[in-house]
Amino acid sequence: MKKYCFGVDVGGTTIKMGLFDVDGNVLDKWEIVTRTENGGVNVLPDIAKAVEDKMTEKSITKEEVAGVGVGVPGPVDAKGIVHRCVNLGWDEFNVNDKLGQLVGMPVMAGNDANVAALGEMWKGGGQGHNDLVVVTLGTGVGGGIIINGKMLTGANGAGGEIGHIHVQDGEPEECGCGNKGCLEQYASATGIVRIAKRILEKTQQATVLNADSVTAKDVWDAVKAGDAVAIQVAEQFGKYLGEGLAAIAGVVNPEAFVIGGGVSKAGEILLSYVEKNYKPVVFHGSRDVKFALATLGNDAGIFGAAKLVLG
Amino acid sequence: MKKYCFGVDVGGTTIKMGLFDVDGNVLDKWEIVTRTENGGVNVLPDIAKAVEDKMTEKSITKEEVAGVGVGVPGPVDAKGIVHRCVNLGWDEFNVNDKLGQLVGMPVMAGNDANVAALGEMWKGGGQGHNDLVVVTLGTGVGGGIIINGKMLTGANGAGGEIGHIHVQDGEPEECGCGNKGCLEQYASATGIVRIAKRILEKTQQATVLNADSVTAKDVWDAVKAGDAVAIQVAEQFGKYLGEGLAAIAGVVNPEAFVIGGGVSKAGEILLSYVEKNYKPVVFHGSRDVKFALATLGNDAGIFGAAKLVLG
Repeated sequence: MKKYCFGVDVGGTTIKMGLFDVDGNVLDKWEIVTRTENGGVNVLPDIAKAVEDKMTEKSITKEEVAGVGVGVPGPVDAKGIVHRCVNLGWDEFNVNDKLGQLVGMPVMAGNDANVAALGEMWKGGGQGHNDLVVVTLGTGVGGGIIINGKMLTGANGAGGEIGHIHVQDGEPEECGCGNKGCLEQYASATGIVRIAKRILEKTQQATVLNADSVTAKDVWDAVKAGDAVAIQVAEQFGKYLGEGLAAIAGVVNPEAFVIGGGVSKAGEILLSYVEKNYKPVVFHGSRDVKFALATLGNDAGIFGAAKLVLG
Repeated sequence: MKKYCFGVDVGGTTIKMGLFDVDGNVLDKWEIVTRTENGGVNVLPDIAKAVEDKMTEKSITKEEVAGVGVGVPGPVDAKGIVHRCVNLGWDEFNVNDKLGQLVGMPVMAGNDANVAALGEMWKGGGQGHNDLVVVTLGTGVGGGIIINGKMLTGANGAGGEIGHIHVQDGEPEECGCGNKGCLEQYASATGIVRIAKRILEKTQQATVLNADSVTAKDVWDAVKAGDAVAIQVAEQFGKYLGEGLAAIAGVVNPEAFVIGGGVSKAGEILLSYVEKNYKPVVFHGSRDVKFALATLGNDAGIFGAAKLVLG
C-alpha cells in the first residue's frame, strides 16, 4: 500500500524537495544545494541521497513510496529524456531511468514549468479544472499546459514554451532564446521594465517612475496609485499578454488561465489589464474562460512533481 | 469480432459516408443530402438509415461493426455534446447518445476539422506522427490538433480553432466570427483575395492579376509564373500563416504541420512561403518541424471519423 511520494523541483542553485502523502499533504519540505559542476554529475545522486536520508529519518520503506517526481529546468519529453539542460550542465539522458536506478523506485520527470502547472491544477489556483494554462511571469515568461489533466509535453519537450511566441515585429533587442519580439520580452518582470523605460524616455507626463531604477513592482504600485505613465505601461503589458493568451486559447480552448510568478504578486489589477485585452480578440468559444492567480508560489514545482509520479 | 466501421462527415449540403474495414481500407463511399430544415431534425435519422441500408446491402451484422464515427461542422466536446451547429440548425444535444440509440452501435462524434486531422494522421499527410497540427485552408481556415494520437477537443469543443487567432490590429473588416484581424481573414482563399485586392489597389507594377476577378488560384498560378505582384501577395500570406503557425508551435510543439484545403492545391511553393516566415520567429525547440501537404482531400473527414470510433 503506497502512502507517500516525493516531489523534487530542480533549480539552478537549489533543489526543492517535498515529502507528501498520496492525498497531496506536505509532510516535510526542505532544500539542498544544486551542484552544477562537472556537467551536473552530482545532481541526481544528491537527490537520491536526500530521498534515502529522509526515508531513514521517517522510518519509511520503499514499499510505502509511490515514487519520485522531478521538475527539471529544460525540455523533457514524455519518456523522461532531457534534451540539454543548460542551467545544470546536463546533456541528453533519461532522468526516469537514471534516477530510478539510484533510488530503486519509479521516477517521473517533466519540464519544471509544465510540472508547476500540474501542481497549480492539483492544489493551487487551477483546482477544479482539467484543461488549463498556467503562465509564470518571472524573470522570463514560462508556461505549462494541462489537457485533460495531463501535461502537454510536445514532440520534444517544448510544449507550453509560450514565452517565446512572437508578438512584435521590429523589436531591436534579442530575447534570451535568440529571437526578437518574443512575448517574454514584454510580459516578464524585465519586459515590464523594458516597456517602462521606453515610455519614460519619450513622455513629458509627471510620474513617480524613475527610468534608472524602475522595477516591475514599482510599475504596479504606481498603477494602483493612479500614475498615468504607469497605467500606459500596464496597458501595453496587458495588450501583449492578453493577445498572447487569446492566441493560446485559440489553440487549446482551456477552462482557465492561472497566472503566477513574481510579477503576479501585483494581484487582481494585473488580471484586469490582461482580461480586457484578451476578450476583444479571442474566439467566442474561449471568451468566458476563467482568469485566476496562482496560489502555490515556489511550492508549485514540488506539488506538481508529486502529482506527476502519483499519476 | 469487429470487422467494419462507418465514418461519416456531416456538411451543410451533403453528408459523406464511408464503410471501412478496421485497418482503414475504404470498402464503400457514398453521399446523402443534408436535410437542414426543421432544426436539422432529420440529419441523424438519415445517417442511421444510410448505415442500416448499407449493412443490409452488404449482409453485415451489428456484431461485426465497431461503430459509427461522425464529424460535425461545429464545436463538439469530448463527451459528444454539440454546442449549437449553425449550418445544420442544431441546438445542444449529445450526438453520441442520440445517434447511438438510432443505430444500436457505439457512436463517437467530433468537430469536423479535428476529425479530419485524425484522418490525415491515420492515412494521410501526417502518417507516422502522433503530435501534429492539420491546417485546412479553404473558404475559411480550420485547424485540428492531435496530441499523442488523440484530438485536442478543448474545454467546450473549440480546441484547434486556429483560424480565429488574432494576427492583425487595425483590420477594418469583420471576420465571420465577429472579431477583426483573425488569421482566417488573410490565410483563407477569401483572405488571399483580400490581400491581393489591397495590393492591386495601390500598385503601379505590371501584373496578370485582375482586381475584379482575382481568385486564390490565380494568385498562386501567377506566383509560379514569377509575377512580382502575386509574389507580394504570397509573401504577406506566408507571413501571416508562418507566424501564426509559429505561435501554435510555441503552444503545442508538434512534430509536423499538415496543410490541406483547396488553397493547398498550390502545392510545395505555398509551403515554402509559410516555412520561410515560420523559422525566424519560432522557438528553437520547434524549428525543425516537418511541413507536409494533406493527401486525403475531401475524404479526410470520413477517414478521421472511422479512426475516432476505432480509437
